[in-house]
Amino acid sequence: MRRFQFVFILVLSVSIINAQKIMGFNEANAKLQLDWEKQFDAQLNAKNLDLWMQFLTSHPHHLGSTKGKANADYMANLFRSWGYQTELAEYHVLFPTPKTRVLELLGSKPYKAKLEEPALKEDKTSGQKSEQLPSYNAYSADGDVTAELVFVNRGIPADYDELERMGISVKGKIVIAKYGGSWRGIKPKVAYEHGAIGCIIYSDPEDDGYRAGDVYPEGPYRPKFGVQRGSVMDMPVYPGDPLTPGVGATKDAKRLKREDVVTLMKIPVLPISYEDALPLLQSLSGPVAPAAWRGGLPLTYHVGPSKDKVHLKLEFNWDIKTLYNVIAKLPGTELPDEWIIRGNHHDGWVNGAADPISGMVSEMEEARVIGEMVKKGYKLKRTLVYCAWDGEEQGLLGSTEWAEDHKDELRKKAVAYINTDGNSRGFIGVGGSHTLEPFFNEIADAVMDPQTGVSIKERRYANQMVNGDKATRTRLMGNKNIKLSALGAGSDWSGFLQFLGIASLNLGFGGEGSGGEYHSVYDSYDHFTRFKDPGFQYGIALSKTAGRTMMRLANADVLPIDFTSFYKTVNDYVGELKTLLDNTRTETEQENKMINDKLFDVAKDPKKGFQSPKPKDIVPYLNFSELENKMAELKTNAEEFQKLYANGTQLSAAKQKELNQILFQVERALINDKGLPRRSWYKHQVYAPGFYTGYGVKTLPGIREGIEERNWKEAQDNISVVAMTIEVYTNEVKRATSIVKPKAF
Amino acid sequence: MRRFQFVFILVLSVSIINAQKIMGFNEANAKLQLDWEKQFDAQLNAKNLDLWMQFLTSHPHHLGSTKGKANADYMANLFRSWGYQTELAEYHVLFPTPKTRVLELLGSKPYKAKLEEPALKEDKTSGQKSEQLPSYNAYSADGDVTAELVFVNRGIPADYDELERMGISVKGKIVIAKYGGSWRGIKPKVAYEHGAIGCIIYSDPEDDGYRAGDVYPEGPYRPKFGVQRGSVMDMPVYPGDPLTPGVGATKDAKRLKREDVVTLMKIPVLPISYEDALPLLQSLSGPVAPAAWRGGLPLTYHVGPSKDKVHLKLEFNWDIKTLYNVIAKLPGTELPDEWIIRGNHHDGWVNGAADPISGMVSEMEEARVIGEMVKKGYKLKRTLVYCAWDGEEQGLLGSTEWAEDHKDELRKKAVAYINTDGNSRGFIGVGGSHTLEPFFNEIADAVMDPQTGVSIKERRYANQMVNGDKATRTRLMGNKNIKLSALGAGSDWSGFLQFLGIASLNLGFGGEGSGGEYHSVYDSYDHFTRFKDPGFQYGIALSKTAGRTMMRLANADVLPIDFTSFYKTVNDYVGELKTLLDNTRTETEQENKMINDKLFDVAKDPKKGFQSPKPKDIVPYLNFSELENKMAELKTNAEEFQKLYANGTQLSAAKQKELNQILFQVERALINDKGLPRRSWYKHQVYAPGFYTGYGVKTLPGIREGIEERNWKEAQDNISVVAMTIEVYTNEVKRATSIVKPKAF
Repeated sequence: MRRFQFVFILVLSVSIINAQKIMGFNEANAKLQLDWEKQFDAQLNAKNLDLWMQFLTSHPHHLGSTKGKANADYMANLFRSWGYQTELAEYHVLFPTPKTRVLELLGSKPYKAKLEEPALKEDKTSGQKSEQLPSYNAYSADGDVTAELVFVNRGIPADYDELERMGISVKGKIVIAKYGGSWRGIKPKVAYEHGAIGCIIYSDPEDDGYRAGDVYPEGPYRPKFGVQRGSVMDMPVYPGDPLTPGVGATKDAKRLKREDVVTLMKIPVLPISYEDALPLLQSLSGPVAPAAWRGGLPLTYHVGPSKDKVHLKLEFNWDIKTLYNVIAKLPGTELPDEWIIRGNHHDGWVNGAADPISGMVSEMEEARVIGEMVKKGYKLKRTLVYCAWDGEEQGLLGSTEWAEDHKDELRKKAVAYINTDGNSRGFIGVGGSHTLEPFFNEIADAVMDPQTGVSIKERRYANQMVNGDKATRTRLMGNKNIKLSALGAGSDWSGFLQFLGIASLNLGFGGEGSGGEYHSVYDSYDHFTRFKDPGFQYGIALSKTAGRTMMRLANADVLPIDFTSFYKTVNDYVGELKTLLDNTRTETEQENKMINDKLFDVAKDPKKGFQSPKPKDIVPYLNFSELENKMAELKTNAEEFQKLYANGTQLSAAKQKELNQILFQVERALINDKGLPRRSWYKHQVYAPGFYTGYGVKTLPGIREGIEERNWKEAQDNISVVAMTIEVYTNEVKRATSIVKPKAF
Repeated sequence: MRRFQFVFILVLSVSIINAQKIMGFNEANAKLQLDWEKQFDAQLNAKNLDLWMQFLTSHPHHLGSTKGKANADYMANLFRSWGYQTELAEYHVLFPTPKTRVLELLGSKPYKAKLEEPALKEDKTSGQKSEQLPSYNAYSADGDVTAELVFVNRGIPADYDELERMGISVKGKIVIAKYGGSWRGIKPKVAYEHGAIGCIIYSDPEDDGYRAGDVYPEGPYRPKFGVQRGSVMDMPVYPGDPLTPGVGATKDAKRLKREDVVTLMKIPVLPISYEDALPLLQSLSGPVAPAAWRGGLPLTYHVGPSKDKVHLKLEFNWDIKTLYNVIAKLPGTELPDEWIIRGNHHDGWVNGAADPISGMVSEMEEARVIGEMVKKGYKLKRTLVYCAWDGEEQGLLGSTEWAEDHKDELRKKAVAYINTDGNSRGFIGVGGSHTLEPFFNEIADAVMDPQTGVSIKERRYANQMVNGDKATRTRLMGNKNIKLSALGAGSDWSGFLQFLGIASLNLGFGGEGSGGEYHSVYDSYDHFTRFKDPGFQYGIALSKTAGRTMMRLANADVLPIDFTSFYKTVNDYVGELKTLLDNTRTETEQENKMINDKLFDVAKDPKKGFQSPKPKDIVPYLNFSELENKMAELKTNAEEFQKLYANGTQLSAAKQKELNQILFQVERALINDKGLPRRSWYKHQVYAPGFYTGYGVKTLPGIREGIEERNWKEAQDNISVVAMTIEVYTNEVKRATSIVKPKAF
């Protein structure tokens, strides 16, 4: 008996190994697919990434530059050579560039900010002065202001609450904020809301300078004159060309007048280095900054105001520039009208090696090998659309204008959008639509980490366990499933996911290639190949990961959609919101009681000017039941569908097509045409960038931001909106189930 | 009816107000006592504190200095003038002072450390060079070493675990550690245990320099050349004169040979300023220091080793010096052999205004007014013993030698020991024996905060609520009871509490007078009166607090001992230990599994040299039942006694005396003559300084350190020891109960 058992187990194991499954593929197609993936891996070549990065980063290649156009042409030609139907998609967008930049400290110890990043002999492209965009924030207002300076930490709303308690106003002042803690555009927006007339943003050495690690060229971190450029457009309202919200910025598009555009900053904004920030911060008197506000400069951080005034003068050329997206299609043989879209931007702020070329060259190599395989007989059911976006840095211009311009076609045809951007050594990071979570986990099992030889999923898990905090360890122990993060803002998925409701993923490796080159002249080939991904091994790993994602989506018999993952995740969000509301209530009650009991008055140091906060309105109980009932219904239906999902691979082609239509259209059900409160461009009811965080995602944003901003009616109304959205979604799930359900007769 | 009710309530309220109770006093005596306390408050005079501080801090007054002896004489004369029987108690103690101090960085960028604190024109005593002790660490070894340098963060055991993971050894190296995170003597001790041959300790500007606030003389924080002097004697083994452990260092005491003394450091140790530390830290290469290790200097913190070597040469005069304690007694009229002891040290490292004179002058004013009141008819039942200790800075020398020298008498007579040390603006802080918790809370209700007019208890509560974290807020909400902290090391209570088992309290205000003058030439009258307690209002508040404590203990009919507070606190400690053991087990299991699963190997960055930790032995389950049963018995008996406690005030004088003897002797029951494992001097089974933390207390230390150091047998053995201790203690509680219990017939 024992011997027999052993043999039986052995046979079973072997047969399991042989019958390797891929989600959405029948057995025969899975085997075929896996064979092609093996060939795909074998043909990827790191030398191509290296050569292309050298070419693409050899000169500054920002939106509107000669080199930017040359790069687009270069890539388009390559795509063509690999068999893609390729075009340049041009749009005409507002892109201000600086004419005047003056920042000076007046008074007894005057200082004129240098606003220049010096060339380094160790970095061969850092000296291309005439082609470089100067350091500035795009979509700052023109302005010439002179005022006292106030330090506002990260410049987010909570910092102004703290300033108020200190009795410090920024009204009529220029503020200086540290980079980080929010999308940079939040800082001048909130400063303006509080009455400031100018905004300076600097890179504190604690964040990505010498306190984070050795500075360039000794190490990867920001040297003292390094500056982070960047857009300060109010993207949480809408991204893309400021003059053409919701429509493509074609030559003859109807354009807003500049003075009517809400996404342009109202005050002048300028980014500076920490060397330029030092004398400004030294000029501040007033209270010592709270402990959490202090950075890594050798001084006592004060809040201000400054004894001496600061003069900030900025003027811009408000030009319309042409951007060039590269759009390369490889048509599907069976389902040419189902599109799997892949994108990475190609424009940089200067030479942009890490951001964005590291991701771009990875996408190109992936496209090249797929193209070559198709030439050798690899069949794609669905159409692949490879894109290289322009004007991402200014506010996702290229991708947004293209998505807006093709919205009708995309609504019909787009199955998914797969995004990448900068890439470096380390661990796989992934965010996106939660219907794709089990699908992506299969891929993460299949791609091996180049440094350790274990799967990228195993390595990510090891990192979370070893470097995570105690709570993370305890939560994850043994659970290697990759939980997708929710997507806010930050790269080119917004037009697809949040405007059109196309299921999206964003992929990239990182964690071992940190540095301080971001948006500076030092984000170069030299920097990248020394510190980020020498040998481009993680570039290849990204090609393998994204390439599999594209090919499996293109060839799945049944699209790999999982409604239970979606249900569980959204249900967790609902739980979070209820907890948030309860905690807000408890904290409000506590704080109001403390105010009434005069605890703030009694606790305060009479030598400091702290004010007691004002009592807040009480937090009502909201009715979540409507949403909870819809979620319960979704749960039942999602579970039923998923139980029957595998049946789909056995259906007829016609039935499969019908089923797949539902499966990729289902994300559209999460779109509400009216959009979110105060920002109708954002239509997705589950994922949006935070109105006051920018990069940071707000899930179920209509409800969440209502609670966070204490707009109880808005929160309650949006519970209904989301409940109705979930109902429509569940109806789609039911329709899908009816197709995969075995008929009784 | 309504009217009647109202009158009734009014009458009741008035009678409650009239019948104000003090714990341990019958009604008549309470009234008398409160009247005297009113007079006491009225006579306290801040000008005295100011004048005495000016005198006592006018020159450096360290152990062995001319000014130290002059101060002792000055105070003795004052105590005599207030009616106290006063003597100077001399002891002869080992006190090394520096002969040679050299610290230099060799190699291509040589630097010779200045090791000098410059005079400031804004500080009139800072330039008394000839009288100042140079900056050094007392009880450092002599030595002349040259080696590479390694940065070890705070230099505690956990830091060496991290160094091991980085693959960095300190064997044969000189280490440089930041001040803070432990008592300073731990740093060279642990460095030596790991094979280092020298130790440098510096004050990082993040901790008490410019990153904490404006530096002296603009603000209170440590200027760039400010140095923290201090002892590095291995006090967690035993404090006091290194040559005479356990006995008074009288002229003819038997002394150890210096080479046999275990509390002297084995390697040379030197404290330096952050200006002197900068070039040393800049010389370090090797891995970038972990984020939590980095400080406020403008450089990238590296772990080392340094490229260039460091030369450290130290020689000391190993002299026996005479110390002078001032001992001033005011004999009790009824119970002269029951002593309430009060102490503050009088020696400073240099001019020592905050540390210790701010507390000393508060004690003096308290003693003066009590003395004057006695002259006017105030009767003290018990004897007050006011002490001014010498040689505290070197290792609690004066208080320890006196306690050891008088151990038999103190064991019989000492009711309690009340300690103070430096004092400043802010909030009452109190630690000590938990039997005294309700007693102290009554006092904290009675003393008003000078800045806000609410009680010091209310203000402390307000501060904890406003500035505490969320968990603290939620825990405390509405509960104003002051929880005494447990006493570890740090000032002169050790000889009384931990060696002899005398119930102790340590009192002081703080939290609004932070600075960086500690143990430097800048701890001066000028600094104190600008930044710490201008006008000495908190000095007076301390006199009120400690004075009440002394007078109530002196005159209580029944000593204000509360066994239920003791029970609850110790029971919480037992719970903590069980949790600690369980958490250690879970963490060990988790980490061992992670090691076996090779997660550390997979997660590590191959470009960095991190080592996987080694698996640890599994954590056994320990038998706590013996102790838990004894605790249960204590609970019942403590509750019974406390129910009957008030009866005590109605007993005959003879019965009261019998009861009081039990009540103050009960703390002796917590003493185990064998002492703690590896340090027999520390005999208290509930409170001890941590063997590897120093200042930081370890409660139930025999068990706790057994668990922390994974010595499971020691932990189990000590559960029995503590259980037996609690049994003996409970028997004393029972004896006390039998006295207050109404007889059945």
